[in-house]
Amino acid sequence: MSIQYKTSLEMHQIHRGKMETVSKVPLENKIDLSLAYSPGVAEPCLEIAKNPSAVYDYTIKGNLVAVVTDGSAVLGLGDIGPEAALPVMEGKSLLLKRFANIDSVPICLDTKDVDEIVRTVKAISPTFGGINLEDISAPRCFEIESRLREECNIPVFHDDQHGTAIVAAAGLINALKVVNKEIAAVKIVVNGAGAAGIAIVKHLRNLGFQEIILCDSKGTIYKGRPEGMNPVKDEMAEITNPNQVKGTLHDAMQGADVFIGVSVANLLTKELIASMDRDPIVFALANPNPEIAQDKAKEYGVRIIATGRSDYPNQVNNILAFPGIFRGALNVRATEINEQMKLAATYAIASLVDVAEMNDEFIIPNPFDNRVAEVVTRAVSEAAIETGVATLPGVAEQ
Amino acid sequence: MSIQYKTSLEMHQIHRGKMETVSKVPLENKIDLSLAYSPGVAEPCLEIAKNPSAVYDYTIKGNLVAVVTDGSAVLGLGDIGPEAALPVMEGKSLLLKRFANIDSVPICLDTKDVDEIVRTVKAISPTFGGINLEDISAPRCFEIESRLREECNIPVFHDDQHGTAIVAAAGLINALKVVNKEIAAVKIVVNGAGAAGIAIVKHLRNLGFQEIILCDSKGTIYKGRPEGMNPVKDEMAEITNPNQVKGTLHDAMQGADVFIGVSVANLLTKELIASMDRDPIVFALANPNPEIAQDKAKEYGVRIIATGRSDYPNQVNNILAFPGIFRGALNVRATEINEQMKLAATYAIASLVDVAEMNDEFIIPNPFDNRVAEVVTRAVSEAAIETGVATLPGVAEQ
Repeated sequence: MSIQYKTSLEMHQIHRGKMETVSKVPLENKIDLSLAYSPGVAEPCLEIAKNPSAVYDYTIKGNLVAVVTDGSAVLGLGDIGPEAALPVMEGKSLLLKRFANIDSVPICLDTKDVDEIVRTVKAISPTFGGINLEDISAPRCFEIESRLREECNIPVFHDDQHGTAIVAAAGLINALKVVNKEIAAVKIVVNGAGAAGIAIVKHLRNLGFQEIILCDSKGTIYKGRPEGMNPVKDEMAEITNPNQVKGTLHDAMQGADVFIGVSVANLLTKELIASMDRDPIVFALANPNPEIAQDKAKEYGVRIIATGRSDYPNQVNNILAFPGIFRGALNVRATEINEQMKLAATYAIASLVDVAEMNDEFIIPNPFDNRVAEVVTRAVSEAAIETGVATLPGVAEQ
Repeated sequence: MSIQYKTSLEMHQIHRGKMETVSKVPLENKIDLSLAYSPGVAEPCLEIAKNPSAVYDYTIKGNLVAVVTDGSAVLGLGDIGPEAALPVMEGKSLLLKRFANIDSVPICLDTKDVDEIVRTVKAISPTFGGINLEDISAPRCFEIESRLREECNIPVFHDDQHGTAIVAAAGLINALKVVNKEIAAVKIVVNGAGAAGIAIVKHLRNLGFQEIILCDSKGTIYKGRPEGMNPVKDEMAEITNPNQVKGTLHDAMQGADVFIGVSVANLLTKELIASMDRDPIVFALANPNPEIAQDKAKEYGVRIIATGRSDYPNQVNNILAFPGIFRGALNVRATEINEQMKLAATYAIASLVDVAEMNDEFIIPNPFDNRVAEVVTRAVSEAAIETGVATLPGVAEQ
């Protein structure tokens, strides 16, 4: 076990987890109790009973996000179950607090049934101001998110899909500026048709990218492919692969400007990279080990490489997106997180790397850049207002 | 609006609720992130995947209690719904922290369906070390609790039932010492057959009380009563009213030593009190206004009066019970909170009032007496071990 893993394990054991719940009010004597609890507490209860939206004024709801998982696709570890997923969900909850001052609670579900998950999350939703779905395997995650978005009146966001898509797209926008290519003119190969891959494709289409080929383990996805399809892949076949390229990843890669991998470690070969267009851009996002190592990529001629790793330059880290997105949605009490809000977040993240400073090794802001959550918050709030899903006048405060 | 209600409302508004979630570990740089989150967090995940009980070693689960309600019977306010119940649930969560260092999360459910509530609580249970049911109306609360106790492998406790029963019984044990009467010889009238009334009756029977008459709005409950019965009242008819007294509360009260009201304000008349045995003991627990005011009770000859109010002596306050009960259960990782644990909590609370100090106005310890949670914790842990429901060797640490 590496020292990092050992230290992490010890840290989790010493503290018995990483988070706690604390009071914002004093509880030291009978008067304190009579205000925080009975009988005084009856007053905010009655105000909310009279006017349901007052729950946002008198309770934690408006600043509380549930991080919900069924433990079916945790990190790169797969289906390890709800209990084993809890350390990740606690971590995610704390990131919401650290980067956007959002209170948050992990909810690990003892079911993998889509109906049951939808029913459960809906049932617990009165307590929460937003729902962050996490580490739920594809294709169930698509139906769960879309049904919850329909049935809940609070924002629902599957971070593995949209967070990854938003940050990768922000990096890609900047990478194309570095190599001086146009969004509408580039050819992109996305390898991996899970939650992240599907979301990346949809998001890149919404950003104006024209030629995208999506590949899975059976090769390129195209209309009418005889095997390994499902309704989501059918939908992808409609909006990608305009030239109906049939074949393997190798066939897809011919002349590609950009490779985005959300697949498995070490599959990008020297030959595949050699078949790309000038100044190849590679987003090797497989976790924890990318589709190609940073040094190998450079050796084989990749111009710009981004990965999910914090020890390389250009880290595609969801921390850049989800805290500000939820903050922006909560600040204007948005009823959903829609495409326009995601696009706004993408441009906001991209904008933080100044064109003058931009280079092969700096296309994505640092996760600890304090401006990130602030600009994302503002952009998302504004987009919510513009698209009519905000229910409060816009104050993009944090 | 009284000043207390106004102050409480303002306090809730200023803080937007009363609780927050915070980190126990640093999150200031990339190294911190790599330990609390990816990639380091994979290590505790894998340990738990290998050995599910390790979830107690590496996460918050073992110290986290969900405070679950459907908002159907909140304080004395009735069915005000899940959102309006949230201020009470936040308060309850904070009391668990304040009095027993237990982290806690309110879960307000958007359903009143028994099956749905059971399914939902079971589905979210992997995150939690215990479930506190709160403000769920009778008779649904009985079925919900008993089914959850069967289906979950963590302690489930409906505080409105058992917390009230435990603290009232502790006070009654001491009150009988003050007036020098024996448990087995007294006659008790319990007025109110909701969650608290039913639980009080069951608990008093388990403590050895022999003659209890339970009354509801239709009068005394007895075997074969033709109207207003339900399965729970049928069960009560089996274990109470040995002389089959039929009639009104008035008939029940003749010669009673103790009146316990969990019913409505101001129903105890001078005449009813006059019909009681020597040294009448009255527990007037209706909230916020008791069955008889403290001064009236004294005027009419009540020897010892206890209420739910903090501004009178002898407050029957659940805070004396539920924090130590959960702490005691969590400390030994008990799989349930059984009758023996509740009896142990009762004796522990009663024991904190020294016989030498005991008097008409001091039969119940003060909620801010620091010894309370400690002795309850120890007693509950020991009872869990003795009854074989503890899964850890006993350390009654707080």
